Amino acid sequence: MNPAELYETHRDLLTRAVEATVARDYWSAFPESPSKSVYGEEAAPAGERAFTALLGKPFPIDVPGATGTVTTERSPYGLELAVSYPRADPLALIAAARAAAPGWRAAGPEGRAGVAAEILRRINAASFEMAHAVQHTTGQAFVMAFQAGGAHAQDRGLEAVAYALAATTRLPARSSWAKPQRGGDPLTLEKTATVVGRGVSVVIGCTTFPTWNSYPGLFASLVTGNPVIVKPHPGAVLPLAITVRIAREVLTEAGIDPNVVTLAAEEPGDGIAATLATHPDVRIVDFTGSSEFGDWLEANARQAVVYTEKAGLNTVIVDSTADYRGLLRNLAFSLSLYSGQMCTTPQNILVPRDGIETDAGHRSVAEFGSDLAAALDKLLGDPARAAGTLGAIVNDGVLSRVTEASGLPGVIHPSAVVADPAFATALIRTPLVAGVDAADEKTYTREWFGPVSFLITTESTADSLRIFTETVRAHGALSALVHSTSAEVIDAAREAALDAGVHLSENLTGGVFVNQTAAFSDLHGTGANPAATAALTDDWFVAGRFFTLQSRRHS
Amino acid sequence: MNPAELYETHRDLLTRAVEATVARDYWSAFPESPSKSVYGEEAAPAGERAFTALLGKPFPIDVPGATGTVTTERSPYGLELAVSYPRADPLALIAAARAAAPGWRAAGPEGRAGVAAEILRRINAASFEMAHAVQHTTGQAFVMAFQAGGAHAQDRGLEAVAYALAATTRLPARSSWAKPQRGGDPLTLEKTATVVGRGVSVVIGCTTFPTWNSYPGLFASLVTGNPVIVKPHPGAVLPLAITVRIAREVLTEAGIDPNVVTLAAEEPGDGIAATLATHPDVRIVDFTGSSEFGDWLEANARQAVVYTEKAGLNTVIVDSTADYRGLLRNLAFSLSLYSGQMCTTPQNILVPRDGIETDAGHRSVAEFGSDLAAALDKLLGDPARAAGTLGAIVNDGVLSRVTEASGLPGVIHPSAVVADPAFATALIRTPLVAGVDAADEKTYTREWFGPVSFLITTESTADSLRIFTETVRAHGALSALVHSTSAEVIDAAREAALDAGVHLSENLTGGVFVNQTAAFSDLHGTGANPAATAALTDDWFVAGRFFTLQSRRHS
Repeated sequence: MNPAELYETHRDLLTRAVEATVARDYWSAFPESPSKSVYGEEAAPAGERAFTALLGKPFPIDVPGATGTVTTERSPYGLELAVSYPRADPLALIAAARAAAPGWRAAGPEGRAGVAAEILRRINAASFEMAHAVQHTTGQAFVMAFQAGGAHAQDRGLEAVAYALAATTRLPARSSWAKPQRGGDPLTLEKTATVVGRGVSVVIGCTTFPTWNSYPGLFASLVTGNPVIVKPHPGAVLPLAITVRIAREVLTEAGIDPNVVTLAAEEPGDGIAATLATHPDVRIVDFTGSSEFGDWLEANARQAVVYTEKAGLNTVIVDSTADYRGLLRNLAFSLSLYSGQMCTTPQNILVPRDGIETDAGHRSVAEFGSDLAAALDKLLGDPARAAGTLGAIVNDGVLSRVTEASGLPGVIHPSAVVADPAFATALIRTPLVAGVDAADEKTYTREWFGPVSFLITTESTADSLRIFTETVRAHGALSALVHSTSAEVIDAAREAALDAGVHLSENLTGGVFVNQTAAFSDLHGTGANPAATAALTDDWFVAGRFFTLQSRRHS
Repeated sequence: MNPAELYETHRDLLTRAVEATVARDYWSAFPESPSKSVYGEEAAPAGERAFTALLGKPFPIDVPGATGTVTTERSPYGLELAVSYPRADPLALIAAARAAAPGWRAAGPEGRAGVAAEILRRINAASFEMAHAVQHTTGQAFVMAFQAGGAHAQDRGLEAVAYALAATTRLPARSSWAKPQRGGDPLTLEKTATVVGRGVSVVIGCTTFPTWNSYPGLFASLVTGNPVIVKPHPGAVLPLAITVRIAREVLTEAGIDPNVVTLAAEEPGDGIAATLATHPDVRIVDFTGSSEFGDWLEANARQAVVYTEKAGLNTVIVDSTADYRGLLRNLAFSLSLYSGQMCTTPQNILVPRDGIETDAGHRSVAEFGSDLAAALDKLLGDPARAAGTLGAIVNDGVLSRVTEASGLPGVIHPSAVVADPAFATALIRTPLVAGVDAADEKTYTREWFGPVSFLITTESTADSLRIFTETVRAHGALSALVHSTSAEVIDAAREAALDAGVHLSENLTGGVFVNQTAAFSDLHGTGANPAATAALTDDWFVAGRFFTLQSRRHS
């Protein structure tokens, strides 16, 4: 089907998605449950077969100008992957992208949204294959990989499609202008508005959420009319290689040059992200990863608009609670999920020196610490269930931070080894929590990405809010949580979060966690603090990716 | 009235304005005719009295932290102005703006739009006072000053208000989220979205269109929640001083800190634009003026989002026409209006070596040149009417370029002195047109801001289109015009304009001119070529000025 036909095919889905961007009540296009009743009897075994068939072979994908191959992935679960990918020549990719751009521009916003929706539909159909690929590159446990790497990522992709489609069709493509003239016929003009992409787009993926964090930029750039070079992290190529393979299939079938989407795989150290991001023809860069490289991109990719999501100090302010057990259970799960390897996992837990009031009575800082440790032990007591929550440690960098934190003086809950019954060599660790004083800024204003958090003793809740605002303004954050039964404290926390520029969750004690955001309802990142330059996904995230060019003539 | 009441007062106007941003048919909120039937018998004399009362005195405005005064303006019409303004201390202005920000944030998008609409309503009521102020700073003739500096600027300001209001209210301020759970009650959350301005905004005005070019940034920043420091060009302070005076009156009456809008007047050479634009607390910069300083701001105001409108090579491609007299009349007027001192005035007129086909027969390049010169002479034959079209030369820089161009070898129409019957010492010049060959790039790829244009002989229309695309991609442009009777040439010109990244007018032979754009219908600038980083006014122009911060809690 050509782009116009794909738009007609997916028109209802796209219309519903655009409505959801405005309503922002609950909506999801892609089911998050890997159950047979949703995806059918055959989906799971077929997906596993498709994944297994990829192992130990060259990945089936064309890459213009590639020279040789690279094999760079290692499963945190110990599975031998040995998938090789064409090694990218960045200049050849840019040339191919430029050549593909005019045809993509001509497809128009609706046609491009139709192609994007079809790509997402087929990615969704490959969700089981993708889940294995995500699990064995990121270390996410299978169900999380299916959800965060599959359905949730697809929803985020569709959300970006919806914002981009709405933004590129908000001005009418054709309009008639008639200016009244005193004592004469009106002056009339026919006007045309054409959306033109900014230029070649580069999406730089990360190792922990290769799809979830890449899809918004990928699909926003595509629908706004830009060819996209997808540059995966060398440790998590496969999920994006599958994505690019599917995108190229859909493009080819739609009669579009498949080089609208290309894969840029590299040896670690090739540094092609920097080469691509600073090339004069590259006009859009999306990046998720370290603050160091993100800051470098913002400073050096001057010819491009740069959207970064980096790191920060996710903070919990504990003042008081009406559901102490719920608080502990909820917080223990947030610290444990994927071993704290989420950009939204809380790191800094601020508790006033005099302790907190709870429905289970007053708790001192020390009591709160031991209660939290107990909640972690309870959550992670069964190895099989623990492995399903914790997933595996993605790389040695995370592991070395856990080792470093283990040497801190105030450890409240040490990081323990968990044996996964299914994968004997999987690298699995429980969260470490260490107690520190608010004066020990040097420790807790560093980001310890992974299962390391701090219980920080402050002078008071007011002091906690001050520390929260100051540290987040300076170092950034992607999430924040407050627990309080006091309306004044909640109000103060909301003001503090506005000042800090971070989204706030309040009194989460049930099945919603501070480290999870929902597409079509929650923004992820704000742009208002150093952790990210934009939110996923809003108008600012899409508006810089295109221009609107007008022409006008007399009727 | 407080902000909420002002919103209710202006709700219909704002709703209509938002609708107009989407429909983009003809709409205007502020009448462009200075006639008594529109503005009443008394408006003109009262406005003149108000203007005259300002002359020779300190301008009545509070500026926080000001030290001493400056008097920097000179009327191109020779009138003695001698208005003095408080001399700004940039750091004091930034501190005052920061202090005013929380109250402005609390007013909310609708409240801020209500305040903005009231400011515009009062500016409109002061249109005659403003017209004199614009005339005697910019050199625009009175009627043009009334229109471009008054009603059209007010429409552009309202357009920015409408885009900003729509963008800041597109996400609901409150929403309810309910995620179905298998075999249980749904997970539910109440969510709040709060718009937070990016930070202190600085608007740097230009000398030729102090209001028209400043209002979009001023009002976009205001409505998105930012305090604004208005930094006029030392040669055109009065129009923006009146604007700031009115804004502060409205803010004060609404119970808002008037330092939400402040005036930053300086001695030429104080360089406070650079000081303001690079200060860490300044997060938004709007600039209209030279490419040199605009490029400097883009490179150096790294802590801010920077919107610039600079200079370029506005181009006319002449291929053929079915209305030769209309073409000549229309083009002669475009070259003459305000002595070519518009950022949209055509500079480069590309004509094929073999001449052009017209309804009046074939015309060689030389014949076209003499016909254009004759059309200029006819348009400007009567001194009083000529003065009304040409206005006056704004400053010595423009005059020296005219002098320099007079020495070029191929002058087709020399620049002549015109005596304005009303202002004996007004500096008025007709447009100069010089013939050059396409090979003489050094001459015509420079911007000659003012009444200097080039008739450039190319090999063919295809060559003209190539030169058009290449020169505009390299040097930028704010307008382009093609004349052709051939559908293929028009199609090729449209593609060339998309590649060049410039808006295109086609076959203008009547009462619409390439150098004029209409608010709520035409975009001004594109962002897609070096002449500007954004269009006035679209989502991209407003979306970077604010963040949306969410909070969420269980229902």
